[in-house]
Amino acid sequence: MPKNQAVSLSVVRRLPRYHRFLEDLLKSGVTRISSRELAQIMGLTASQIRQDLNCFGGFGQQGYGYNVEALLGEISRILGLDHTLRAILIGVGNLGRAIATHMSFETRGFDLVGIFDKSERLIGTRVKGLEVQDIASLREFCFREQPQVAVLCIPQEAAQVLADNLVSWGIKGFWNFSHYDLAMDYKGIVVENVHMGDSLMTLAYQVNDLFHRGLAEKEADASAVEK
Amino acid sequence: MPKNQAVSLSVVRRLPRYHRFLEDLLKSGVTRISSRELAQIMGLTASQIRQDLNCFGGFGQQGYGYNVEALLGEISRILGLDHTLRAILIGVGNLGRAIATHMSFETRGFDLVGIFDKSERLIGTRVKGLEVQDIASLREFCFREQPQVAVLCIPQEAAQVLADNLVSWGIKGFWNFSHYDLAMDYKGIVVENVHMGDSLMTLAYQVNDLFHRGLAEKEADASAVEK
Repeated sequence: MPKNQAVSLSVVRRLPRYHRFLEDLLKSGVTRISSRELAQIMGLTASQIRQDLNCFGGFGQQGYGYNVEALLGEISRILGLDHTLRAILIGVGNLGRAIATHMSFETRGFDLVGIFDKSERLIGTRVKGLEVQDIASLREFCFREQPQVAVLCIPQEAAQVLADNLVSWGIKGFWNFSHYDLAMDYKGIVVENVHMGDSLMTLAYQVNDLFHRGLAEKEADASAVEK
Repeated sequence: MPKNQAVSLSVVRRLPRYHRFLEDLLKSGVTRISSRELAQIMGLTASQIRQDLNCFGGFGQQGYGYNVEALLGEISRILGLDHTLRAILIGVGNLGRAIATHMSFETRGFDLVGIFDKSERLIGTRVKGLEVQDIASLREFCFREQPQVAVLCIPQEAAQVLADNLVSWGIKGFWNFSHYDLAMDYKGIVVENVHMGDSLMTLAYQVNDLFHRGLAEKEADASAVEK
């Protein structure tokens, strides 16, 4: 079986989606699935699936399909979900609070070990069982607890300076929700930018385009058959 | 100037990022920028930028660069941000509440006109100035107010059935935050799935990969120079 290094990032970026579908299949009691069936559920072609999953070898058998549990296990292993990375979250405004409480960090290979804010109003309150700490204590916390990943839910203006400091304090990966594209030019640092506004603008384009191309009626048809 | 139809979806998906950077430049008082400078800021090549922006024609002048305001305006127009789409949000748990309050819908071409939940505890409370309505009144609301877009912040189990109903009630676009990949097989319906868990798993892979490849030290170096 090839080592992780052999898996290209473009394949890696598709793995979480396989993980999601395989997990759902397993929950529904499905133990084997052919590439054709999996392709149908996921809206891909069977050949794309075979090509992606052949990278990890040995899970598909001609005529028998994939062993769902084994494949899910292998994808989890490749994604590193069997390891635990210590994560801190900075900024518990609406978004930060939602991410802390809504996201299942523990099933995605993370342990949320500290939450920070600079607001007097928030410091000392509890979010997801953790006491919100003063951002002024962040440096000392990083040296003591050695978190590897920081989730940034702070305003754009503050993001780059804080990121620079966090890198010097040992942070290796950022999950960045600030409006800002975090500079990627640190050596040995990874950044995953989540720009929800970009996604919303793409949706605006696509819906407007439907109307432009006459594929959607301007007004809903009140006589439409209700499902 | 080519019509919208001439812009491929892969270019469109890059436009929000251009929009973000150009908006920041304009805020900083920059009125003209060369493709080389813009490339540097955005971490792209100048030729990629010229190729993308040539789709809209007339904004770059050899030796003079792009007029930031004109280019931003044109990108806004292409994305449809000069139109307003009526949106409803369904599910005001932690995530739904954060999206309603945190996202600037109005600057991205949307008007949030209704918020719905099924929880007795939440119905009647106010989120972003709107009263949370009973999901039982959703059908009637759709026929009366004719929203075009639905933001789904509901559990996976409920998503597909609700989406089917919303399509029959006139919804043309979905911004989907449920764990579920919304079926795309409706004619004339667009779906933008936001899977934050996928992003988090991709980050897990990348950080673990740094350690595997020896590009990051397991332990932070306490003697690192602080910026």
